[in-house]
Amino acid sequence: MQIGMIGLGRMGANMAARLLKGQHQCVVFDHSQKKVEALSKQAVGASSLADFAKKLTKPRAIWMMIPGASVEQLILDLLPHLDPGDILIDGGNSHYADAVRRAKQLAAQKIHYIDCGTSGGVIGLERGYCLMIGGPAEAVKRLSPVFKTLAPGVGDIPRTAGRTISKGTSEEGYLHCGPSGSGHFVKMVHNGIEYGLMAAYAEGMDILAHANVGHREPSHDAETTPLGNPEEFQFDLDLSEIAEVWRRGSVIASWLLDLTAAALVKDPTLARFEGRVSDSGEGRWAIKAAIDQAVPVPVLSAALYSRFSSRGNAEFAEKLLSAMRFEFGGHEEKSDSK
Amino acid sequence: MQIGMIGLGRMGANMAARLLKGQHQCVVFDHSQKKVEALSKQAVGASSLADFAKKLTKPRAIWMMIPGASVEQLILDLLPHLDPGDILIDGGNSHYADAVRRAKQLAAQKIHYIDCGTSGGVIGLERGYCLMIGGPAEAVKRLSPVFKTLAPGVGDIPRTAGRTISKGTSEEGYLHCGPSGSGHFVKMVHNGIEYGLMAAYAEGMDILAHANVGHREPSHDAETTPLGNPEEFQFDLDLSEIAEVWRRGSVIASWLLDLTAAALVKDPTLARFEGRVSDSGEGRWAIKAAIDQAVPVPVLSAALYSRFSSRGNAEFAEKLLSAMRFEFGGHEEKSDSK
Amino acid sequence: MQIGMIGLGRMGANMAARLLKGQHQCVVFDHSQKKVEALSKQAVGASSLADFAKKLTKPRAIWMMIPGASVEQLILDLLPHLDPGDILIDGGNSHYADAVRRAKQLAAQKIHYIDCGTSGGVIGLERGYCLMIGGPAEAVKRLSPVFKTLAPGVGDIPRTAGRTISKGTSEEGYLHCGPSGSGHFVKMVHNGIEYGLMAAYAEGMDILAHANVGHREPSHDAETTPLGNPEEFQFDLDLSEIAEVWRRGSVIASWLLDLTAAALVKDPTLARFEGRVSDSGEGRWAIKAAIDQAVPVPVLSAALYSRFSSRGNAEFAEKLLSAMRFEFGGHEEKSDSK
Amino acid sequence: MQIGMIGLGRMGANMAARLLKGQHQCVVFDHSQKKVEALSKQAVGASSLADFAKKLTKPRAIWMMIPGASVEQLILDLLPHLDPGDILIDGGNSHYADAVRRAKQLAAQKIHYIDCGTSGGVIGLERGYCLMIGGPAEAVKRLSPVFKTLAPGVGDIPRTAGRTISKGTSEEGYLHCGPSGSGHFVKMVHNGIEYGLMAAYAEGMDILAHANVGHREPSHDAETTPLGNPEEFQFDLDLSEIAEVWRRGSVIASWLLDLTAAALVKDPTLARFEGRVSDSGEGRWAIKAAIDQAVPVPVLSAALYSRFSSRGNAEFAEKLLSAMRFEFGGHEEKSDSK
Repeated sequence: MQIGMIGLGRMGANMAARLLKGQHQCVVFDHSQKKVEALSKQAVGASSLADFAKKLTKPRAIWMMIPGASVEQLILDLLPHLDPGDILIDGGNSHYADAVRRAKQLAAQKIHYIDCGTSGGVIGLERGYCLMIGGPAEAVKRLSPVFKTLAPGVGDIPRTAGRTISKGTSEEGYLHCGPSGSGHFVKMVHNGIEYGLMAAYAEGMDILAHANVGHREPSHDAETTPLGNPEEFQFDLDLSEIAEVWRRGSVIASWLLDLTAAALVKDPTLARFEGRVSDSGEGRWAIKAAIDQAVPVPVLSAALYSRFSSRGNAEFAEKLLSAMRFEFGGHEEKSDSK
Repeated sequence: MQIGMIGLGRMGANMAARLLKGQHQCVVFDHSQKKVEALSKQAVGASSLADFAKKLTKPRAIWMMIPGASVEQLILDLLPHLDPGDILIDGGNSHYADAVRRAKQLAAQKIHYIDCGTSGGVIGLERGYCLMIGGPAEAVKRLSPVFKTLAPGVGDIPRTAGRTISKGTSEEGYLHCGPSGSGHFVKMVHNGIEYGLMAAYAEGMDILAHANVGHREPSHDAETTPLGNPEEFQFDLDLSEIAEVWRRGSVIASWLLDLTAAALVKDPTLARFEGRVSDSGEGRWAIKAAIDQAVPVPVLSAALYSRFSSRGNAEFAEKLLSAMRFEFGGHEEKSDSK
Repeated sequence: MQIGMIGLGRMGANMAARLLKGQHQCVVFDHSQKKVEALSKQAVGASSLADFAKKLTKPRAIWMMIPGASVEQLILDLLPHLDPGDILIDGGNSHYADAVRRAKQLAAQKIHYIDCGTSGGVIGLERGYCLMIGGPAEAVKRLSPVFKTLAPGVGDIPRTAGRTISKGTSEEGYLHCGPSGSGHFVKMVHNGIEYGLMAAYAEGMDILAHANVGHREPSHDAETTPLGNPEEFQFDLDLSEIAEVWRRGSVIASWLLDLTAAALVKDPTLARFEGRVSDSGEGRWAIKAAIDQAVPVPVLSAALYSRFSSRGNAEFAEKLLSAMRFEFGGHEEKSDSK
Repeated sequence: MQIGMIGLGRMGANMAARLLKGQHQCVVFDHSQKKVEALSKQAVGASSLADFAKKLTKPRAIWMMIPGASVEQLILDLLPHLDPGDILIDGGNSHYADAVRRAKQLAAQKIHYIDCGTSGGVIGLERGYCLMIGGPAEAVKRLSPVFKTLAPGVGDIPRTAGRTISKGTSEEGYLHCGPSGSGHFVKMVHNGIEYGLMAAYAEGMDILAHANVGHREPSHDAETTPLGNPEEFQFDLDLSEIAEVWRRGSVIASWLLDLTAAALVKDPTLARFEGRVSDSGEGRWAIKAAIDQAVPVPVLSAALYSRFSSRGNAEFAEKLLSAMRFEFGGHEEKSDSK
């Protein structure tokens, strides 16, 4: 079927490419005309939103793949060009409550709004994207061919024990989760989990990376905790090999572990990274939702806070701790302590 | 080759079965003669440790697959029956420092001690076990055929990008990590990560399970926090379908997610479980090691503490919190609050 | 001066009493006429909001001391009875953003809105309340006599080293923190800290309460972690005496510790408490604010989550952990494990 | 009475001074003769351990106030100079299990070993020290005059409601907690709590310090989470004044808050501190003990980990997180993000 794609960044461009490969027609638009031109051989490029809307057959299906902070404005800009029956899909990382609100507002103009959480990363072009979809059933159904192409399909992933064949599309990699907002709600939680998983591997690998601290020269002042058992920390481990062996038969095998192994093969010291870890918002929302629900999420929170700390955001708190220690014990900071 | 297996519980019996299928000879022993008899068609059963030792060709290779708390005694009991050149493998969950100590003690008697972390669970029989091995190179090499059979092998898992063919055995699912203790050290960290991963999924799923709390009747007393935005929590989600869709193409796909999907297919309410989560010690050791190293592991710790809490172990702390609240604010406990 | 007090619960009634003792005139109102009557000897009771407004001299000063969830409605109900120049104070636990919004809305009608965070608990009647005030300077100034009476005053608390005399009112126990919302913002953070402090004592006391676990009979199955060093946990400690000794000269002396000592004197086992710990919302808001700011708050979050867990809110997550363990390892739950 | 003091650092020298002021006789020793001389007007200085032992009347009472890592060697060096009936007190921060072991070993030579946890910091000289004492009752009793002098005494701290007069010495600021090791056990937990309290204040203050982040220019790329509600973060708060007001009548008043106020008066930006926070070991031990007990201590752990992170110890984990993000999403690090 025909679909319009707005936003040709890493994700949007790849998704358009996958749709084109799947024999769909694409009309594409981006603020950067360069990005539009890059796809212009297979897709129909648009020079403006007005042009974009004109090139799409009614009722239109428009997929927005842009930063969450820009969605509100885009909808306002698009609206004058839309008609009743059109479908608007937010495939990016917006807050799910925005989808609830927008769907209601647009429904008044008979425009269908779909929130679609999209996971897959840069490899999604080839492997397909996991799609978590919220919105009115009819519009979701109309877009089935698009979802089917974007998703990975059943592939060679073994069927879950106990599942019967008939139930829905989840085995194909896309799922209509429920009414408006539910797609982004599920994606939000997905990203919260992602942070937790990543941090679990990172912390574990950090223990392995320090398995040889017993070799260090000990300090004997009252400010440094002596390592009581240096003989227990004498291992020089090959983290790259360990990540690799865990990929086969272990309880902790996963796609993130595959990526960890790949990163460590390139450089076991990860020297090209500074360790300032961004977060794109969904992990924050997941935790705020949990707090609203009074559901304890210590692991997901710890994972998020590690990212905040990695960017130096705890600096004032840390200074205050040192200041208190100075006040009560006269302790001066040790700039070389570990 | 020939190998002796002591401990025919879930793990040991399956490993013996996999070795037998791989054309190895097994002499087996367990305190329960029933378990010995269950394997007696294909394996040579032993009626005592003395009998067990006699039935093994020298130099012996003996695999212990028993609870960590029983290893010390078993070694003491076995020792009189062993000879120089024998290899003793601890395939269970012992503390890695015990391996360091035991290897040194046994080396004095020319007995080789190998610590082998074993991951794989009950499906390992069929799929193979991920093996993390520590100990003297020569002994490890001698056991290669055994490790090769127990491990999953390369299988159809895609090669990690950037890896060259020649490097070691990790791609086959077993790895000589380093000197004595390093195998159990790596396994300890593996289990620490496992706890973190499990908790990340569990917390995320818990948020999904509470996506409909906006339906609840609100409380209006000063002891209960009102849900400020009930309209944002109106989703009745099918967790089983969500776990399923995440298995395909998402960033958080993993074997633990596969198991989650399987568990939720059987019963989305998980009613047969009480939620008292055991821990077998390695997660604790991982965190204690990290603390010795001064490496922050907030996620792994939070995961462990969730297990402790699930067993009611925070009870006194919780009572004290209520007691303080009563002291300063006259707050009485609300037994129905969530 | 004259002040109207709405809400005669534990906090409001005590504050009215303290104001009366301080020679202020009070007009009081509560939905329960019983509570109004209880104060009617010294205060002017009102039978309705209209009556309440009529009995106050213009420009009125009205202090609301009611649950946060009821403030919005009360303002709507009061509004018809108010006049330009009146001051409305929210002394309870509302979200600070509500104060920002309400102050702006009411300013349009020339009504001054003040958000006043109030700490002190039931002992505040005698000791005074710590007041954190946000709002327009003029209105705050007009209420100075009231704040002065409610606050504890300088008392015999030693002056902070390095402070000069002239700076503001903080030494008297009340502070104009800034524009509308800042009072409740500071109170929100105050309560977040309170949760953290309480949890720190509770966790520490829980370690002391378990100092004798080495006496327990050990388990020898693979599901229970053996206590490796039972000889190190043989202490039967008197928690009440320990809390008492810490009150004198230790780094951790505090008012919350005083309360802990008092609670433990009454009953060292705290048997009358179940351990279901409520939270009144401000701790949640503090963490959500920190997440918005990208400031890591692992301690405050952990403290909040402990309360959620104490109420059984992690149940589904815990069941899922047990379910995963069953799936991969065939582990059955142990209902008696600790 | 007469007491020998070994170790004249900040703590030891002050304690000797307090004892001298209390009319006790002190024999003092330190590796630095300068420090010995500094006290030589009021105390008897010793030039060596032999000289020190000779100058003490039998049975001797010797207080060691030195870094935990040096205690073992000091005992070995002292031992030849001691006699049956002598008392050795470890007033520093040793692991409590060392006290259990040492007390047993020294008892064989009829030397009494006492573990005394000492809290109070540099102000202890003036205010007195909180003492948590473990060891044999007779030896503890013999030292009562010393403990009484070092401790703050009842002072003007209000009696805990419900306490009867007769019970022990805790109200005077020292307590015989139980057998050998219990003093350091209680001190270990004390320090764990201390970390938690400090972190709670530090995190809360950090939220206050970021109350104006809404003024920052927002970013509009997919790597930075936009602040959804900048209008809610527009407060420029005076942290020094806030700390001050909390000292009076609030639930979170404490000595650590007094110190916080003092530090912020000196410099509200705390510019002289880098924020590298040391830890002296007892916090680590407290958490390890809790893990052995299977008691969840999320707050105390988070507090410790914040210190580890402040020293850059999570660096490898952070790099790995960035590396994973690059692998799955092509995300480059943003060096200026917050």
